[in-house]
This record gives sequence, structure tokens and C-alpha cells, in this order.
Amino acid sequence: MSTYRFSFPTAIHFGPGVRAQVAAHLESEGLSRPLLVTDRGIAALSMHEELMDQLAAAGLKAASFSGIWGNPVKSQVMPGVRAFKEHQADCIVGLGGGAALDAAKAIALMATHPGDLFDYEDEKPGARPIDGAIPYWVALPTTSGTGSEVGRSSVISDDETRLKKIIFSPKLLARAVFADPELTLDLPAKVTAATGMDALTHCVESYLAKNYHPICDGIALEGVRLAAESLVTCVRKPKDIQARGSLMMASMMGAIAFQKGLGLTHSCAHALSTVADFHHGLANGVMIDYALKYNIPAAEDRFRNMGMTIGLKNPSGESFIRWLETLKSETGIPQTLSEAGIKKDQIDRLAQVAIGDSCHLNNPRPCTEETFRGIFLEAY
Amino acid sequence: MSTYRFSFPTAIHFGPGVRAQVAAHLESEGLSRPLLVTDRGIAALSMHEELMDQLAAAGLKAASFSGIWGNPVKSQVMPGVRAFKEHQADCIVGLGGGAALDAAKAIALMATHPGDLFDYEDEKPGARPIDGAIPYWVALPTTSGTGSEVGRSSVISDDETRLKKIIFSPKLLARAVFADPELTLDLPAKVTAATGMDALTHCVESYLAKNYHPICDGIALEGVRLAAESLVTCVRKPKDIQARGSLMMASMMGAIAFQKGLGLTHSCAHALSTVADFHHGLANGVMIDYALKYNIPAAEDRFRNMGMTIGLKNPSGESFIRWLETLKSETGIPQTLSEAGIKKDQIDRLAQVAIGDSCHLNNPRPCTEETFRGIFLEAY
Repeated sequence: MSTYRFSFPTAIHFGPGVRAQVAAHLESEGLSRPLLVTDRGIAALSMHEELMDQLAAAGLKAASFSGIWGNPVKSQVMPGVRAFKEHQADCIVGLGGGAALDAAKAIALMATHPGDLFDYEDEKPGARPIDGAIPYWVALPTTSGTGSEVGRSSVISDDETRLKKIIFSPKLLARAVFADPELTLDLPAKVTAATGMDALTHCVESYLAKNYHPICDGIALEGVRLAAESLVTCVRKPKDIQARGSLMMASMMGAIAFQKGLGLTHSCAHALSTVADFHHGLANGVMIDYALKYNIPAAEDRFRNMGMTIGLKNPSGESFIRWLETLKSETGIPQTLSEAGIKKDQIDRLAQVAIGDSCHLNNPRPCTEETFRGIFLEAY
Repeated sequence: MSTYRFSFPTAIHFGPGVRAQVAAHLESEGLSRPLLVTDRGIAALSMHEELMDQLAAAGLKAASFSGIWGNPVKSQVMPGVRAFKEHQADCIVGLGGGAALDAAKAIALMATHPGDLFDYEDEKPGARPIDGAIPYWVALPTTSGTGSEVGRSSVISDDETRLKKIIFSPKLLARAVFADPELTLDLPAKVTAATGMDALTHCVESYLAKNYHPICDGIALEGVRLAAESLVTCVRKPKDIQARGSLMMASMMGAIAFQKGLGLTHSCAHALSTVADFHHGLANGVMIDYALKYNIPAAEDRFRNMGMTIGLKNPSGESFIRWLETLKSETGIPQTLSEAGIKKDQIDRLAQVAIGDSCHLNNPRPCTEETFRGIFLEAY
């Protein structure tokens, strides 16, 4: 497996070992004081030490901030902003999954913008404009899931309500991505499965989303192919670098494609994170087959295209859903919400939160609160 | 059919009537003195007058340069540069097919760069760097073919040798594209067919190209679907705006995708332009089935994927080639080189020029001069 450089629209350096190019890249941009932003788990791994060593060896003065965990909340972001200022950092290196990378974006934003983080919430009436310069930042994903490394949004939860707030601006895009599948070789099977289902869900839902965007359609459908080819292998043979590379590519393609829009699975997943602090990818994985079944009457052609793309013998909406069910079982994703620890009396609240989420507005078939209640009940 | 805005990486305004947004767009960029660059044929059409009127109505001081025709040569570009300077233009509006848009890029380059146009030839030893600012320019394609409106290269021929020279730089990208399928409604069937075959060839060859680029693969394959759905309709029912829109989108997707690389059909086509001044799209259209047959052993999977995508019953390399043969006949593309006016004694020269062309370096199966001689002979 070789290394590559793409620009679509972010410059993506892709392939085993490209993480070693970060220090030289920052130097070539005239930067010298990076703040490494990562999560608690990764800070304890050798990849963190290795990267800090590489930055130091190149003569860069790097500091590390690792106060991120779970679904990141605002109170985790603000100490990162202080760390940035105390270090007099001139750039950020985000290392991690969606949580760390979204936090890196929020820290970059608040390093140069006044007020409260949630003043910048997307589409909030009276939201402050993101009009200042954002510190240069590069992203090193360590999971193949959210694709936050190529995305222009940062999802941070409110500490009290647990509601996910979306900060959105093209200015939040990483200036360069170093997508190194070697960083995912040690992921536990459960994390590989949950994040991989997130990547797959992004590809599938953006392909199904009702907006017109053939460029994203093509990227999404090819992402479905790559995820379908690689996900089970990544779970069963974690050191298969080819499969790890394909899944990482699929995760970036899903995130590039979902500027077209997502769908109801994501609204279900956001509700599960809000109501039960579910891991986002796991939530998508548990819900995807139950939720997408609802879309079959509105998108038969597109289900058939996806089925053909992944090599189903009789491609159709039904066979695609059956394939998803098998995929869940092969990757160890819980088949039901009860298996995943949800109580029946949480379902009303889940449906309320889901209908309030904006992702389903691009779903190919309109949803009501009743739709969501039905889907959650079936998934239960 | 509605209008849309994409950014991938160029901002694309797409849909019927978006051409009316050009004047306001230039104004919003603080520009006031556009030079319209177009070809001789379009200068005589009402779309040229309409656009000049719209620019004037918005208070912009526009001038028009229309000294472009055929496969554009350097001696057509330089008067355009003089027109830009004489008008004291601050931006360029390119209106036309690949010839006019490639000329617009070359004029923009030479408006701010010293020396000779071909000093900037891509990969020429000692080539001058494209390091200055390039005037702001926007593109309005009037054919669905080259996709030059989203491309970063300008192909201009040497007046004497007729060899095509490629000037390449991301700086040559249009800053915005106004892709209005209404501008293609009056195209003669022959031009629709030839340019449409160019768009299809870009999609097919970039999908088959051996480089690794799954993002481009997805865009290319979806472009194949759109071109296959729309090309015959555009030829037979020229006023079908839906089909015209799909073909225009396919042409842009082909051009975005071919940053991945092209293949041997393009080397054949470039030889036909050099040796016999063939229209580029027509050359691709005549050669595509003969040339691609050579690739079947090296890319069975990809031919099958393309066949599935366009809905062939038994998708394979052979059935895809048969589909191309039928498409040629349904769109009035000559079936053979002799039908297209080539003499048998030109074949040696064609093979010599084709092997010297760089496009086949990304072909999935290696080519020799003998390969090309064989393909030209069969196509003859």
C-alpha cells in the first residue's frame, strides 16, 4: 500500500506512515509552536509519544492537551483554549477520533473569537459570525468513522442538557489531513465496528438524502463499496492494513459526501447520544437497519444501486436491509436497543429529541415524531 | 429543474438560468471591467449579446474578444491578451466550449506573466513558474464536453507543429462556474454528440485509470451513469432540459475526476487532433470502443461495475464495448476512421504521436507504439 495526496477540498495525505510528515509540513508553513489536541485514551498510547518526539526532533516546541473524552462537552473545550494561549501556540495538531478532532476545531475557533462557544451555534438566531482568522490546524484521525478530519463542523454537547450543538464553518476545515491507517491498527474490535458503522451510515445516508448533488452521490456510493469491502475484515483481522486503509478512505468519503445531507438514522443516533450518552457510531450501527427500512418506498432505485455496488445477488431495499442485519451481527453491533441498554420508558423522549434534530429534513421520506417512535419501538 | 451551488473545489452554480447571476457575482467581487472571451461562432449568437447586455445593465464596462476557433493556437491567444490590456480589464468571463475556456485561461495567465505562453508548458524542463496573481475569471460552458470550466489546465496548440501544449496550474481554475444547461439547448446534434462523447470518455477513462483515487472513482462512475442516461436524449430531443442538465453535470464530473488520470483513448484522440486537426470530442467518440477493448483484460472488474451502473443485463468488458458501439451509432458518431476522413497512410504518424502523448501512462494496461498502430488499424 502506497501513500497519496488528494485535495478535495482539503489536502489529504493518505497512506501508511504519512503521520511522519506532520512536523515537516508545519515547518514548511512557518509554524513552530503546535498544541497537540487529543483525548485521554490516546494520550496514554505510544502514538502520542511518538508524535511529540517527532515534533521535538524537528525543532518544534509542542505542548499537549488531552482533556477530551466521551461525547465532548463545552467544559472540556475551554481548558484547551487556555492551553493554546498559555503555550502561545501558533497551530493545532488534532490527533484522535471525532471527539478530539471536533474539540480541536472548537479550540481553534475560541482561540481567536470572543464570547461563548455556543454563541457560534449554527443557525441559532443572533449567532456570532465566525469572521476572524482560525489558527492553522492539521488533523490525524485515529478511527475510521466520523470523518471529522475532512468536515467543516464541530459537534460539542451542552454540559447540562447534553444536547449536541453544531458549530459550522468552512473556516473550521483542517488545512491538511494526515490519514494514516497504521494509527487504527490497534483499535479494539468494538471501536472499529462502531466507528466503521458511522462511516458506512454517512455514505449510505448521504447517498439517499433527497438533495440534488451528483458529485456527492458518486463519492458516497464509492464509499459504500469501500466500507462494505473492508468493515468485517477490519473487525476480524485488525492488522490488515489494506482493509484499514479502505475503511479510513470510506470514512473520509462519507464525511465529504454528507455536505449533501444525511437522514433519519442520524436523527435517531443524535437522540441516543443526547438521551443515553450513546457513542455516535454505535448508535448509528444499532439503528441503521430499523431506520433505513422506512426509506425503502421512497428510494427503491438507490437501494438497488447500493445493493449492486456491494455485490448483492438480488439488489433491492429488502436485501440491502438484510445485508445490514448480517453486517451488524458479523461486527458485534447489538441487534436491538434493549441489548444496548435502553429502557422502554426512554422511547418517548428519544422520539421527541429525534424529531427536533435537523438531519431528517434531508431524508428521502418525511418523518414525524410518530415515525421515530415506531422505529425506536421496533428497534427496542 | 432547480438551481444549485456546489464547491468541489470550484464554486459551481448549476441550473437553468444561472447565467443571469454572473453580473451580480462580479459586482460582489468588486470587479467592474470584464473581458468576455468567446469563440467566433458564439459571438454571433444571441447568448453573447444577452450576456453583454446583462453586464452593461449592471453597470459593468464589458468588452468582448472573440478571436478563438477550432483547436485554439497560440496566435489566437495573444490578441486576447492585448484586448485584456487595452480594455484595462480586471476580470475575464469565459463563454464557450473547451476552446474558448482554455483560451480564457491562457489569456488570464499571460495578462500577468512575462515571456512566451509556451514557456509555461507543464513539465517542460526549465519552464517558467506560474507564480503571479491570475485575473479573477468565471466560466460559462456552452457545451457539455471538456469540462474545462472546472479544470486546471489549458490546452493550446503550437501554430506550426499543431502539437497540443498543456499549461497546468491550480491557479488557472475558474473562481466560479455558471453551468447553465439552457446554453446548450441550441447545439447542433453533431456537436452535442461529439462533446458528449468527450464527457463520457473522461468519466470512463478516469474510472479505469490505474492511479489510486477512490474519490475520483466515485465521481467518475456517477458521471458515467449520468452521461449514459442523457446523451442519446440530448442528441434526439435537444430541448430536453433535464437531459441537458445531466450531461452538463457529467461533463463537469468527468473533468473533476480526470485529475486521477486518463488513458489510451485520449492519446489516440490527441494524435488525431495533431495529425488531422480532429475535434477532440469527435476523436474520442470515434476511438473509444476500439481503444478500450484493449483494456478489458486489465480491468474486468471495473468494466463490470460500469456495465452495472448503466444497467447492462450481463455487465462485462465485452458488453460495455458493445454498448459503446450502439451509442456511437445512435448519436451519429462515425464508426470508423475512414468514415471520418482519415487516410490509411496517416496511421504510422498517428501511432507515433499517440505513443508520445502522456495520457496513456495512466492507462490500466501498458501501451507501445505497436499497440496504437493496431488500434488505429482496427478503427480504420
